[in-house]
Amino acid sequence: MIIVMREPIKQEDIDAVVEKLHSVGAEAHISRGQYKTIIGVIGDRETVMQIPFEAYAAVEAVVPIMKPFKMVSREFSPEPMTIRVGNTVIGPSTFTVIAGPCSVESEEQILEAARLAKMAGATIFRGGAYKPRSSPYAFQGLGEEGLKILAAAREQTGLPVVTEVLDPRDIDVVAEYADILQVGTRNMQNFLLLKELGRIRKPVFLKRGMSATIEEWLMAAEYVAKEGNHEIILCERGIRTFETATRNTLDISAVPVLKALSHLPVMIDPSHATGRRDLVEPLTRAGLAVGADGVMIEVHPNPSQALCDGPQSLNLQEFAALMKDLKTICPAFGREL
Amino acid sequence: MIIVMREPIKQEDIDAVVEKLHSVGAEAHISRGQYKTIIGVIGDRETVMQIPFEAYAAVEAVVPIMKPFKMVSREFSPEPMTIRVGNTVIGPSTFTVIAGPCSVESEEQILEAARLAKMAGATIFRGGAYKPRSSPYAFQGLGEEGLKILAAAREQTGLPVVTEVLDPRDIDVVAEYADILQVGTRNMQNFLLLKELGRIRKPVFLKRGMSATIEEWLMAAEYVAKEGNHEIILCERGIRTFETATRNTLDISAVPVLKALSHLPVMIDPSHATGRRDLVEPLTRAGLAVGADGVMIEVHPNPSQALCDGPQSLNLQEFAALMKDLKTICPAFGREL
Amino acid sequence: MIIVMREPIKQEDIDAVVEKLHSVGAEAHISRGQYKTIIGVIGDRETVMQIPFEAYAAVEAVVPIMKPFKMVSREFSPEPMTIRVGNTVIGPSTFTVIAGPCSVESEEQILEAARLAKMAGATIFRGGAYKPRSSPYAFQGLGEEGLKILAAAREQTGLPVVTEVLDPRDIDVVAEYADILQVGTRNMQNFLLLKELGRIRKPVFLKRGMSATIEEWLMAAEYVAKEGNHEIILCERGIRTFETATRNTLDISAVPVLKALSHLPVMIDPSHATGRRDLVEPLTRAGLAVGADGVMIEVHPNPSQALCDGPQSLNLQEFAALMKDLKTICPAFGREL
Amino acid sequence: MIIVMREPIKQEDIDAVVEKLHSVGAEAHISRGQYKTIIGVIGDRETVMQIPFEAYAAVEAVVPIMKPFKMVSREFSPEPMTIRVGNTVIGPSTFTVIAGPCSVESEEQILEAARLAKMAGATIFRGGAYKPRSSPYAFQGLGEEGLKILAAAREQTGLPVVTEVLDPRDIDVVAEYADILQVGTRNMQNFLLLKELGRIRKPVFLKRGMSATIEEWLMAAEYVAKEGNHEIILCERGIRTFETATRNTLDISAVPVLKALSHLPVMIDPSHATGRRDLVEPLTRAGLAVGADGVMIEVHPNPSQALCDGPQSLNLQEFAALMKDLKTICPAFGREL
Repeated sequence: MIIVMREPIKQEDIDAVVEKLHSVGAEAHISRGQYKTIIGVIGDRETVMQIPFEAYAAVEAVVPIMKPFKMVSREFSPEPMTIRVGNTVIGPSTFTVIAGPCSVESEEQILEAARLAKMAGATIFRGGAYKPRSSPYAFQGLGEEGLKILAAAREQTGLPVVTEVLDPRDIDVVAEYADILQVGTRNMQNFLLLKELGRIRKPVFLKRGMSATIEEWLMAAEYVAKEGNHEIILCERGIRTFETATRNTLDISAVPVLKALSHLPVMIDPSHATGRRDLVEPLTRAGLAVGADGVMIEVHPNPSQALCDGPQSLNLQEFAALMKDLKTICPAFGREL
Repeated sequence: MIIVMREPIKQEDIDAVVEKLHSVGAEAHISRGQYKTIIGVIGDRETVMQIPFEAYAAVEAVVPIMKPFKMVSREFSPEPMTIRVGNTVIGPSTFTVIAGPCSVESEEQILEAARLAKMAGATIFRGGAYKPRSSPYAFQGLGEEGLKILAAAREQTGLPVVTEVLDPRDIDVVAEYADILQVGTRNMQNFLLLKELGRIRKPVFLKRGMSATIEEWLMAAEYVAKEGNHEIILCERGIRTFETATRNTLDISAVPVLKALSHLPVMIDPSHATGRRDLVEPLTRAGLAVGADGVMIEVHPNPSQALCDGPQSLNLQEFAALMKDLKTICPAFGREL
Repeated sequence: MIIVMREPIKQEDIDAVVEKLHSVGAEAHISRGQYKTIIGVIGDRETVMQIPFEAYAAVEAVVPIMKPFKMVSREFSPEPMTIRVGNTVIGPSTFTVIAGPCSVESEEQILEAARLAKMAGATIFRGGAYKPRSSPYAFQGLGEEGLKILAAAREQTGLPVVTEVLDPRDIDVVAEYADILQVGTRNMQNFLLLKELGRIRKPVFLKRGMSATIEEWLMAAEYVAKEGNHEIILCERGIRTFETATRNTLDISAVPVLKALSHLPVMIDPSHATGRRDLVEPLTRAGLAVGADGVMIEVHPNPSQALCDGPQSLNLQEFAALMKDLKTICPAFGREL
Repeated sequence: MIIVMREPIKQEDIDAVVEKLHSVGAEAHISRGQYKTIIGVIGDRETVMQIPFEAYAAVEAVVPIMKPFKMVSREFSPEPMTIRVGNTVIGPSTFTVIAGPCSVESEEQILEAARLAKMAGATIFRGGAYKPRSSPYAFQGLGEEGLKILAAAREQTGLPVVTEVLDPRDIDVVAEYADILQVGTRNMQNFLLLKELGRIRKPVFLKRGMSATIEEWLMAAEYVAKEGNHEIILCERGIRTFETATRNTLDISAVPVLKALSHLPVMIDPSHATGRRDLVEPLTRAGLAVGADGVMIEVHPNPSQALCDGPQSLNLQEFAALMKDLKTICPAFGREL
């Protein structure tokens, strides 16, 4: 940490900072420049960060130089992580395709979708039983009934299932039926939910908050990891910008940025990022090329009947075509589908 | 709702849309332009919005022309709302000042802060017992112990108390001690929390999500109102932009925009919006001038010892000076402090 | 400037940085922390900033600690600047109201608008002769003919005139007719234009780029000042964000942020910031309250006939009502209208 | 165009709108809904758009349903455009790599860079002779001297040259030396420059404004095309968002969005988008995969001596490695390098 002092400066202000640092066992290196005096701090990061130096009138700025996350960082675990779910492996040698409808609407819809997703080559099935909807008048999901339908789909197809959990009180029931528990964009900083997900032993699929920085996102993952659950998959799903041609802006650079900072697997969700069916295939290709470990795609047997997010859903033929395309290009990137 | 058809268009596509509309009891008005055909829809909004026309291949765009919120809209209740809390009134004839530290750290700190906030003229006291923190290593609040200290402060000063609730399971205990329940920026779309706050009979202080549109914010308020709790105070606390001189960008226009759309009281929080102590006074003045019903300000007996958000806290002398300033200018805006 | 070295670090990397610094006459203070080594740099800012340390493989980050602007900074000129134009004064003791239509459409329109603006109390008149329009098919302004009409309006009313210049080749002719030369949001980083405006002796009205940071904006002003023209008025006109209720988001905090950094006068433009007539009055009040030195307002004798930006223009009665309101509240802020 | 009327509505307001439409030869289709009345407009787009209906007090909203650009649209020219420059072809069957340093610093630097760029496989060479710099104290380019050096590099290598033009007065001299003229991000809405580039017969390389929407960007291209120059290459170079891990956020979705709207070639610039050397390769791969027609990459013989943008420049070995990688993966996407 570096402390930049405000000009004009008095010796007693420097002394106050130094004394405070010494009181917690840290050291101070003072450099007096032509225009500014700076104090380099050496000591335990956690301890030093607790001192609110920014609130000292004589301090102009505090510049942290260490990353605030630990357990999700490359330094903590240099090798890229591989996560095994059912017969599937998520990690550096595969490109995992998660497919399925936005929400569970009926047993018939889900069983058909799952069967065809499997046939086309998806390795994980998705579907929402609890739906966070911006309008209280919109369809809110089938709840536990939906979880049972998802479990039936796994039974029939062998595909592991990922589904969103909204409420800490539902974690146990969701974990009973699902293989991977998803945290949605609106809950990325629902710290209670994150902490309790840290106590289960199933992977967590953590979507980026729609206006979260990459650092905040890794801190959210740190909440889960700190409680003991290290199997976390990060999913970039678009950030909020001024552009209106797409619903959000897929931050494709986030993938290699995360890969440099963390060992966790990273996926992208082109369906939610753009809200446009026609962009799903080109962005899936981009995700593969940029180094993502997989993709989550919305697929619906009949998008024009879907109870949510129809405009961004592929129908099953479109999805099958995309899978065929991926089969062709995956080898160029050293990944197995 | 208006449906814009994609060119080139076939009669059967128009027929399919019209038939679907008729099947739910709605009517269609077709206009064929030189370049585009559009279908004006007349019928029950909720019913029509459930049909995913955007997913029809022949549909280019769907343009909603009605606002999606009802109970929090001006049309529902044309007069600006007045909310009574203890001896205080929040509404169009007053300018309410809520003051207090970011978090409850100790009984001594809170009692001193509350006593001095009261002396300077604040009418509501704030303090956080449950703290949502982006790092799992940061101070997370005193919990119920903190609620008891807040209640003691109210006992001594008579000031009503507002505090944040994070977990639906804590609503009852927070409502037992606090007069107003705050929903923080990270929980603006925690729909479970919103719904359950709709069932209590204490006002809800709803902060804007840091990347929420005004419409999404009003929809969040609608979640509370729909369950029966109509006493909701909206608080603008800055949105996320590219500017880095301030922590967030206070969207001051949101105040008159909200006033035109809704009857709910609107406040601003210049401390969190900017993260800078020196901007609290000018932005408070701007809030008063733009038509806000009040302000939430961070005040700490000793900012440089604060366990969170020290840099943006006023000390008690600074706060007293701000209150004195407000007393002078409030009359020009027809508001009582 | 502070240089943070990448770990693991070799002595030769530190030596390379230190040697480079010595070669330009600067000094290095090395602090080896538990996790990081940092080098504090002392020396001439301009010289040191030219060295691309970020491109050294062994350097992790370079943290500047000095502001990059000089002549427009408070340090350069601690007192707030007062600019005299005709009989009017722009500065800390007045609140200047610039009014007029977006574009000069005809002599009749301009003379009527100017006469009524004057009657209502405006002290500077505006109108665009050269119009930057996002569509090549839109009205592009009357050019020099428009300048002559503006000069006629000044003749009749005595109000000084501000108008936009787009092309460095037009500076002379615009300066011949106008009293203040405006640089529009799209030209804030048109450095050629800025430099040449630095050579004239009339004030420059510099609008913020719609996605410019405050620092970039002050650097644009520095371009003008460096060439010798120190009379620069900064005008906040809204930044681009995700919110769609207003055309842009007025960054009201920019006013006190600029006041802390610079001595230049600061105005706001609520008409362009919001694109909504109904928000002009509340935001003008907010601007006065936050410490702005004035406001630029779009006024048109007949907004529904305006060739550009009709929706945001006040008609003359609305403008007169706003001026009356300002007369009442100005004294509370120690400003004369 | 659709006009939504404000409630409560009077017949005379509808009549006023209809009469105005008739007066310009357009037709009106009126639909009275339960809550809203809308008027569908049929007539010449340009004529109708000139009427400022938004300024009518009785009009709530005006919804355009046609795109505002023509000559750069797919409708105008359904086949993707191919542009020939020297021996190189930019278009749907190739992946063009433009490489070179940010700025021309010396003949030696440029000749070495060009020779090695050629050897590694780049097909177009870049270098800036006129540099738009946010600080007036930074290196501003060698001007015409720099153009001559670029021409010498072409002489030696046969590579066509692209370079930025800032000032309309420089277009002739730049066009004399360069093969492609670049418009930088800060000049995307410098309409004077665009218009004058429309009159030359060399391709224009149009970078996206850092906060421009895709529609504004295409309108900027329309300015060039309208004057008769149809050879325009669009280059996505990152937009401004709240994320700070990268300098800007590369909007990768812009590529397929543009491809759907326009026949113009589209490239990406990962060096400027991110400001980070380590992200250039993964983003180049993503650009190829998403359907871009090429990439512009900063390459410098010695990045740590570069006078600008050193941190994002590849050195020549890194660039050669990237080219080798592209050679392997290009076939999977049906493109020739």
